[in-house]
Parts: sequence; structure tokens; C-alpha cells
Amino acid sequence: MRISELSRRSGVPAATIKYYRREGLLPEGRALNPTTVEYDEEHLQRLRLIRSLIQLGGLSVARTREVLEAVDRPLDAFETLGVVHHALPVPSAETEDPTGKRGEDGEDGTGPDSAAGEVAPAGAAARVEALIENMGWQISDASPHRPALAESLAALSRLGTDYTADDLVPYARLATSTADLDFAQFDGIEDRIALAERAVVLTVLFEPVVRLLRRLAQEDANHRRHQRRAGGRGEQPTE
Amino acid sequence: MRISELSRRSGVPAATIKYYRREGLLPEGRALNPTTVEYDEEHLQRLRLIRSLIQLGGLSVARTREVLEAVDRPLDAFETLGVVHHALPVPSAETEDPTGKRGEDGEDGTGPDSAAGEVAPAGAAARVEALIENMGWQISDASPHRPALAESLAALSRLGTDYTADDLVPYARLATSTADLDFAQFDGIEDRIALAERAVVLTVLFEPVVRLLRRLAQEDANHRRHQRRAGGRGEQPTE
Repeated sequence: MRISELSRRSGVPAATIKYYRREGLLPEGRALNPTTVEYDEEHLQRLRLIRSLIQLGGLSVARTREVLEAVDRPLDAFETLGVVHHALPVPSAETEDPTGKRGEDGEDGTGPDSAAGEVAPAGAAARVEALIENMGWQISDASPHRPALAESLAALSRLGTDYTADDLVPYARLATSTADLDFAQFDGIEDRIALAERAVVLTVLFEPVVRLLRRLAQEDANHRRHQRRAGGRGEQPTE
Repeated sequence: MRISELSRRSGVPAATIKYYRREGLLPEGRALNPTTVEYDEEHLQRLRLIRSLIQLGGLSVARTREVLEAVDRPLDAFETLGVVHHALPVPSAETEDPTGKRGEDGEDGTGPDSAAGEVAPAGAAARVEALIENMGWQISDASPHRPALAESLAALSRLGTDYTADDLVPYARLATSTADLDFAQFDGIEDRIALAERAVVLTVLFEPVVRLLRRLAQEDANHRRHQRRAGGRGEQPTE
């Protein structure tokens, strides 16, 4: 197909496709003549993966190149998913501001000597290990999610809210059920690039869906809780 | 207590406390004499709420003032939680980059004519409404989470992955269970400021914990899946 069709089918503007090609993320097409380049289905699939990594995963071009190299190495699905999973941004209590800056007015808001960046108390890391052991989870030592969870628990502790490993077990059980739903989405996908793309989708793009479902469920729980207290005289459903 | 003790007990630097006071977020203390100001437990509690809203919630000073005014208005817990909940940043597929910019090198990465910002197909909003109806959820028309979820589903569609309302129901059920765990944490809290603070903690600060538990559960699910395929000859637990 020509770049115009590649752009139409991928939803990626031609100028962006050329940019990815210049950056070496997308293989060259087959030159039919000095002015016409032919692309195939593999280019289309690779393009969708590049786009999801950069635009939705927030990965840099360099980080994206690393992931693509891993995808192209002869790894099994397990390893491919691991590489993609670990390359993606890690949730953190310090990065919950979607504007990327503290405050719409650009004001840091925390004033001088902000406490942000305090180190996690040793207790937090110990609680993470206890939770992983309680759950019988198999987590690699290199997982970026261990220290990230410890930092989040430490931030909660600094706010005066301590969660023990036992407190987190019910949440961890629900997380396991969610992950099982996630992996059911991999069934039948054998192609490594398709698996990597789905891993990105599930880890990055589907994450806000899961978070928003939680927010909506919280809204609903708040309504139900209110009605219970008000003896059923609560706000009516808007649907 | 003096500002030094207020700082010690809140974990907020004295300079930051003075900054919040200058911004009118924290009420003046009681002046014992021209050089000494006395603060009480209410100042401490308010300070912790301000800090969680600004530093962890990523709210601007102006937005924080709005929330504090809502907390001080004679609202019931239901309304207070609603105000806090809606004031907080909304998860979005466009803001998953924790660095706040696309790419560590500052390079946008999507090149010119980025497709970011495409409008959500009407179908996405319809799927959100269908899901809310299927779940019997009570969601206010003003909820920022409806359009945010529609946009996330639209982003998935643009990537060639369509989720129907039925596809999302199992996830929504787990989200309901998670929300029930969340609200169990409100039991016994009657004080509005304490409720608002807990709402911030649960919505903002506990969110990365839930997300990280999902990541860890995905890692474990990947290990289990790998071992099943490999007939049990998989990586051994690291714990």
C-alpha cells in the first residue's frame, strides 16, 4: 500500500509516519521507483505499536526503540510481555497530576522546602514484600512496581494513613481477578508484535479505563451509601 | 502548638505552612504576642488536607480553595465527597505519561499533525451510557468521568480495539467491589474535614496503589500463564 493508505488505515498522519521512519522506528518500505514507496501489513502493525508506545504509553523515541528491539528479538510471549510491561511508565503518588505540573497556574503549590521526594521508610518496602508473600505472587526482583508501591505506601504513611499488608490483601485479590480478565484478552494471540501491542494497550491504554470504572463505582457507592443513611430518600438514578 | 510543632506533626515545612497561610488556605493562628502564634488541632487537620489536595492531588491553589470552601459549607458527607471527588484530576488516556511531557528528551514523539485530540466517536459515549445502565450505576450528569471514559474507549477504538459495554461489565463488577472496600474505609468517620481528607486519599493517593497492585498481579499472571504453557517448568518465585 502507499503511504496515504497506510496513514488512512493506521490513523497516523503521513508526516508522523515519515518522522517515525526517519527515527528508525519504522522499517523502510519497498521503493517501487524514486518517488513511490510500497508498505505492507507488517508496516501497518508495527506503526500501530509505535503509536501506542509513544502517544499512549508516553515513551520517548529512545525507549520505544528499546521495546521494538525486544519485540524483534526471538523471545517467547512471556518475555516479550515482561519487556513491554517493564518499559512502560510506572504509576506513582508523585505523578498523579495529569497536567504534569503542580497547579494550573504553574505554581508548584507546595511552596519552598517541599516534602516531595522524601525517601520511603523501610517499613513500606517490608509491607510490600509481606503482601507479595501473602498473595503468593511471583514478582521478579527487577520489577519497578515493588519500589513504586513502597513509595506510595510511604506517601500514605506520611499523611497519617498506614496500610498493612493485610489491609491490602482484599484489594490485591481484586487486582488478581482483574489481571485474569486482562490475560484472557491475550488468548489466541500468538504473533509477538500483536502480543506486545496488546500488552501496551492493556497496561497503558486500558489502565485509565480501569481507573475511571473505579471512579464511577465510587460515585455509585457514594449514592448508595447516602440513600441507605437517608432511608432510601436519595438522588434518583440519572439513567 | 507553635508552628515548629505544627510542622513536625504535619510533616509540612514551616515555610510551606506560612505560604499556605499567605494564600488564605490555612486560617490564621491565635497571636499570643507579636512574635508568637498558637495553632490547634484543627489547623493540623486542615493542613494535612491542604497538603494532600495540592501536593498529592495536583490541584492548583485556586482549586484547593474551592474544595476547602465546599468542605466548610454545611454539606452532608455525601455532598462533601462528591465535591472533592469531582474537583480531583480525572484519569485520561492522554495523560498517562508520568513525566508530563511526551518523551524524556522533551520530544513530543508524535511528530507533526499528531492525532492526539481527535474527538470521541459518538459510539464511545453510547457505550459508556449502556455500561452505566447495565450496571445500574447512579452517576450524576455532571460527572467528569462519563466523557473521560468515552474518550478512553475512543482512543482504544482508534487503535483498533473496540470494547463493548458487555466487555467492560466484568471489569465494572470488580470496580464495584473495589469501591465497596474504599467506602468501608469511611465507616465511623463523621467529621467532614476528616471525610474530605479520606476522600482525597482514596481517590488520589490510594489510586496508584490500586494501579500498582494491578501491575503486580499482571506480572504474576504472566508468570502463571508462562508456567502453564511450559508445563510447570517456569521461573521460580523470587520470594
